[in-house]
Amino acid sequence: MTSLADLPLRPELVGEQPYGAPQLDVPVRLNVNENPYGPSEAVVAQIAAAVAETARDLNRYPERDAVALRADLAAYLGHGLTADHVWAANGSNEVMLHVLQAFAGPGRTVLSFAPTYSMYPEYARDTHSGFVTFPRADDFTVDVEQAVAAIEQTRPDVVLVTSPNNPTGTALPLEAVVALVDASPGVVVVDEAYQEFVRTGTPSALELLPGRPRLAVSRTMSKAFAFAGGRLGYLAADPAFVDALRVVRLPYHLSAVTQAVARVALANAPEMLAAVDRLRQARDGVAAWLAGRGLEVADSDANFVLFGRFADRHAVWQGLLDRGVLIREVGPAGWLRVSAGTPEEMDAFQQALDEVLTDDDVSARMP
Amino acid sequence: MTSLADLPLRPELVGEQPYGAPQLDVPVRLNVNENPYGPSEAVVAQIAAAVAETARDLNRYPERDAVALRADLAAYLGHGLTADHVWAANGSNEVMLHVLQAFAGPGRTVLSFAPTYSMYPEYARDTHSGFVTFPRADDFTVDVEQAVAAIEQTRPDVVLVTSPNNPTGTALPLEAVVALVDASPGVVVVDEAYQEFVRTGTPSALELLPGRPRLAVSRTMSKAFAFAGGRLGYLAADPAFVDALRVVRLPYHLSAVTQAVARVALANAPEMLAAVDRLRQARDGVAAWLAGRGLEVADSDANFVLFGRFADRHAVWQGLLDRGVLIREVGPAGWLRVSAGTPEEMDAFQQALDEVLTDDDVSARMP
Repeated sequence: MTSLADLPLRPELVGEQPYGAPQLDVPVRLNVNENPYGPSEAVVAQIAAAVAETARDLNRYPERDAVALRADLAAYLGHGLTADHVWAANGSNEVMLHVLQAFAGPGRTVLSFAPTYSMYPEYARDTHSGFVTFPRADDFTVDVEQAVAAIEQTRPDVVLVTSPNNPTGTALPLEAVVALVDASPGVVVVDEAYQEFVRTGTPSALELLPGRPRLAVSRTMSKAFAFAGGRLGYLAADPAFVDALRVVRLPYHLSAVTQAVARVALANAPEMLAAVDRLRQARDGVAAWLAGRGLEVADSDANFVLFGRFADRHAVWQGLLDRGVLIREVGPAGWLRVSAGTPEEMDAFQQALDEVLTDDDVSARMP
Repeated sequence: MTSLADLPLRPELVGEQPYGAPQLDVPVRLNVNENPYGPSEAVVAQIAAAVAETARDLNRYPERDAVALRADLAAYLGHGLTADHVWAANGSNEVMLHVLQAFAGPGRTVLSFAPTYSMYPEYARDTHSGFVTFPRADDFTVDVEQAVAAIEQTRPDVVLVTSPNNPTGTALPLEAVVALVDASPGVVVVDEAYQEFVRTGTPSALELLPGRPRLAVSRTMSKAFAFAGGRLGYLAADPAFVDALRVVRLPYHLSAVTQAVARVALANAPEMLAAVDRLRQARDGVAAWLAGRGLEVADSDANFVLFGRFADRHAVWQGLLDRGVLIREVGPAGWLRVSAGTPEEMDAFQQALDEVLTDDDVSARMP
């Protein structure tokens, strides 16, 4: 039998595994920060009707620039944005690929602030970009003065900064974003995948866009919007920035069906986002409960909580999985991440963790 | 106002335009080789029902490996293939991107046989791969002996060969594919986007796959399958080849909706493909008519015909467009490409071309 080693794969890919969290069929899935509440039957019916309408022309290629969808996304974002300011693709993954294809690549460097989203090095690898990280402080915030110094020294072509950060939940103040943009010779992308979950008073970098053509703000419909299965990521920036992404995108990258279904979800934004308040409460509730158990808990503006620290976090993760609760083994050594779920899911998680932590062998909290 | 020139775009992208044929709203569209016949109302209803079912879980990420869809595609292809032999992505564009990400890239070279599909250099550019072409003969066939010599000299990492070729319609004999694979140090992809339209007796390279792990055959649902709006390209190869593509794909690249809709289309393959015979007749009919008008016509196994030659092909293209008929200005100098359409579309094309060619200024056939 032929194995991958027998094929002329690029050398840097040899031994690499396909990326992705385990997709396991368990009762309680709190591992990929999905919104646990699906669409109502009324929205499902609208989606089916829109797809039926679209399906009659499925033999024709989709509208290549997805202008109507981008206009809807701009209207949802507000801040005076129009379709020309918005780019959309099959998930933020593809949006980020387009950004790195346009502005990074061979001989260029991407900088991010670790610990952060584990896909960033994959985007860099897939575009042959250099990748460097600057460490966050112990509380997972970014020390702006040191970060500016690092940027001035490294001169990255693309800065990726996540706010709220994944997997820590840490939001970045706008003054910090301004300082990073001012210091950067290249472009800066603020990844606001979890922005809808922020606490009152945490602003969006969208308001910084006017007058900053090297700044972009990326968003996704996968989290708050309860649309992970629909695969729609997007980005807001100066129209010239969007033009750059249009040069590298593959034509017809967004199917007619994807465009139609996403537009229905956006037309029902209040309903699709209705669970956000409940998920904020679930986040704050589980954070308080974990702290009450004597664990360390990272301060979170997202729909998940990073907690720890365990000498053997894998044993804790496995103990939870054995009890039907799937969370994520991610982030710095000793920490685990749990998504905000339904009240029943949070109860199941807490009960399972209580059971796991009574077993001294696996609890083994770090001193 | 900021322009693209003000942004730190990669130097090789400066001045590049987004790729794509004009999307014009005209009565007769014969420019992108779509199947002119849409799905029946019965299939539309099945698609809507499948999407409604899928939409109830839209808050969850899609099945990342799309195993059920890949199994359906394998069953459609036959030849003893299974899901492990099949890869799928958002159009053949993305399939080819994955192939070049895995097997080409910086310092590596892609070879194809010109004139051929105009996206190949874009795939190479987007993956920072070198790109070279070897010329086809005057009748658009590949001279195998010379091609083998060129491969032995160039030592390309990826050979892309299109059969039937776009925009010429030329099929490649299987002996030629075998010779190319045997001569190649890297991988060989036979792009069979138009395979369903071949004439009786023209075989598929699928039958060559056993024992040739460096060979892949790519297909699409955009043409014969009347599914251009659904965006589904796929590829068959040794499971090790598919494993290589899994390493470079972005996770969750195929939405739950795309998977569901494509599976409905595949379950209705006989109906979706019902127009193929009519389109073959339309192709042969328009080819005979063009030859009868004294024009040169390339021998075609696809759902389009390349014809010429005109001293000013753009004037002919524009003359047709002025009469509501959109065809494609593509291929070698002096030639134009027209897709096979409905009988009414073919009549409209022929009437418009008759009118255009009476105008000596634009007809100006080459001697």
